[in-house]
Amino acid sequence: MELELVRWLSENLPPHPLLRIGIGDDAAVLHWPTNGDLVVTTDAVTDEVDFILAETDPRLVGHKALGVNLSDLAAMAAEPVAAVVSLVLPRKGCGGRDGKQLAIELYRGMLPLAEQFNVAIAGGDTNSWDGPLAISITALGRATVHGPLTRSGARPGDYVLVTGALGGSILGRHLRVEPRVREGLLLNERYELSAGMDISDGLALDASRLAAASDCGVALRLDQIPISADAVKLSACDRATPLEHALGDGEDFELLLTAAPEVAEQIVREQPLGVPVTFIGECVTHAGLWQMGAERRLTPLDASGYRH
Amino acid sequence: MELELVRWLSENLPPHPLLRIGIGDDAAVLHWPTNGDLVVTTDAVTDEVDFILAETDPRLVGHKALGVNLSDLAAMAAEPVAAVVSLVLPRKGCGGRDGKQLAIELYRGMLPLAEQFNVAIAGGDTNSWDGPLAISITALGRATVHGPLTRSGARPGDYVLVTGALGGSILGRHLRVEPRVREGLLLNERYELSAGMDISDGLALDASRLAAASDCGVALRLDQIPISADAVKLSACDRATPLEHALGDGEDFELLLTAAPEVAEQIVREQPLGVPVTFIGECVTHAGLWQMGAERRLTPLDASGYRH
Repeated sequence: MELELVRWLSENLPPHPLLRIGIGDDAAVLHWPTNGDLVVTTDAVTDEVDFILAETDPRLVGHKALGVNLSDLAAMAAEPVAAVVSLVLPRKGCGGRDGKQLAIELYRGMLPLAEQFNVAIAGGDTNSWDGPLAISITALGRATVHGPLTRSGARPGDYVLVTGALGGSILGRHLRVEPRVREGLLLNERYELSAGMDISDGLALDASRLAAASDCGVALRLDQIPISADAVKLSACDRATPLEHALGDGEDFELLLTAAPEVAEQIVREQPLGVPVTFIGECVTHAGLWQMGAERRLTPLDASGYRH
Repeated sequence: MELELVRWLSENLPPHPLLRIGIGDDAAVLHWPTNGDLVVTTDAVTDEVDFILAETDPRLVGHKALGVNLSDLAAMAAEPVAAVVSLVLPRKGCGGRDGKQLAIELYRGMLPLAEQFNVAIAGGDTNSWDGPLAISITALGRATVHGPLTRSGARPGDYVLVTGALGGSILGRHLRVEPRVREGLLLNERYELSAGMDISDGLALDASRLAAASDCGVALRLDQIPISADAVKLSACDRATPLEHALGDGEDFELLLTAAPEVAEQIVREQPLGVPVTFIGECVTHAGLWQMGAERRLTPLDASGYRH
């Protein structure tokens, strides 16, 4: 099976200027452009946790598997270069597809995204077993001259920004991940950001993580948080408010950013991205996650975001 | 759980001179030394296929998961630099260990091997699910000035060499992988090799793959193949001969190499490694896998090695 898949891949994976040796040898060889730190991330998605294979087009699953990795590169403001794909396939296949057909559909979902961001699919490993589908991807990128964007650089007084609108990704956006690669690169190039990460486990939880990594607190202005139409739609079906969805739902894959007030104000004024950038709070000296109310009063905010 | 594991990792992963940002951010950042192509490989090992978790010390499983990846770097004669680890853990744990304890034991198995080969454990992803254990590792290395060693450079007339002794790895060696990293680097530096790969699916099958990648054939001298004590031991318990085990058993993780006759003879004469290097055959013009008998007569040899 792996042999046939390797044949399909060698016919269908596009060439890439940096890829010297691709699929088919013991490892891939990439020409690594000098003057750029290597940024590497790995993320796995698994059946019944990150998607339900029996109910989902496997191309969407492949798209998501690569998308969540590119989102991590976006969060570091790194330029994607390559990815390697490790598939653990159910031996029995799924939905009338055997393992090989399933693998091809997964790759078919990855290829357009790889092309969009100029990512070389450099190699892969394909295994079959009696367990469910698991896909682990490792993405390689390089930091630009503006350096990688980390979680740990926020300082009390910095403003907190977010791209896009939050909540309700379970209605479909969690599969159709649009990694904010260009947005992360553009903002990091044009403005002096102090910290950043992608929101994968919910705004509240991830904001508390950024705060912890930066040794400060984050105070959110709850009335400023951009709420997605999906969050509104979802709240009509359950007991959570749209705001609770925006705070707690996972897999938005938007960027959470901090910058000095004047920089943040400039970004919000200039709106340099195709998606909105919104002011949602401030970094504060008191560790933890807070809600900032009238007269800047802080009350504790529960960090319980979505957990896998 | 992941939070506690990240804490354990940040206390137990040793620093590495090239690792600028390790575990704990959206991605790791490595300083990439210039003048060296990047070699990247990914390999997953899964429960009930590559190991039986219920019967195996998880440290051995962790060792194997990293070892098979380093063996792929060895096969490219690349110098290991870093690895990222993606764990998909059974939610219920195993053998009285919960998921976190299991993850720590897996890492405990990787760390000595990583230290031995100066590999930075640069990052990881940890997931839990209701399925069995799957570990996917991506290893990064760099080619030396002598270039990467590929499968495709063998030419008719080249001699075929192998390190170590083959067969019967199922008795334990398949877990205690000793990746031939130093051996691959030393041979590629000191001698002009034409092709190489690691033997993971059995000598016969892998030799036929090297032949196919090089557009030639490989003819093995069956009386020259180094047979491991494990292969002899195993043949006492089943109907296969020691030679059949040496030809067909998987997971030897030895190096299969080709070089021009005078180079190969020099290697065999000088025996520059701690493990023996043995002449086992020749590359021939006729595609496929052959057995070379008296008077250099070729008869077809079945390539059915071990398949996962």
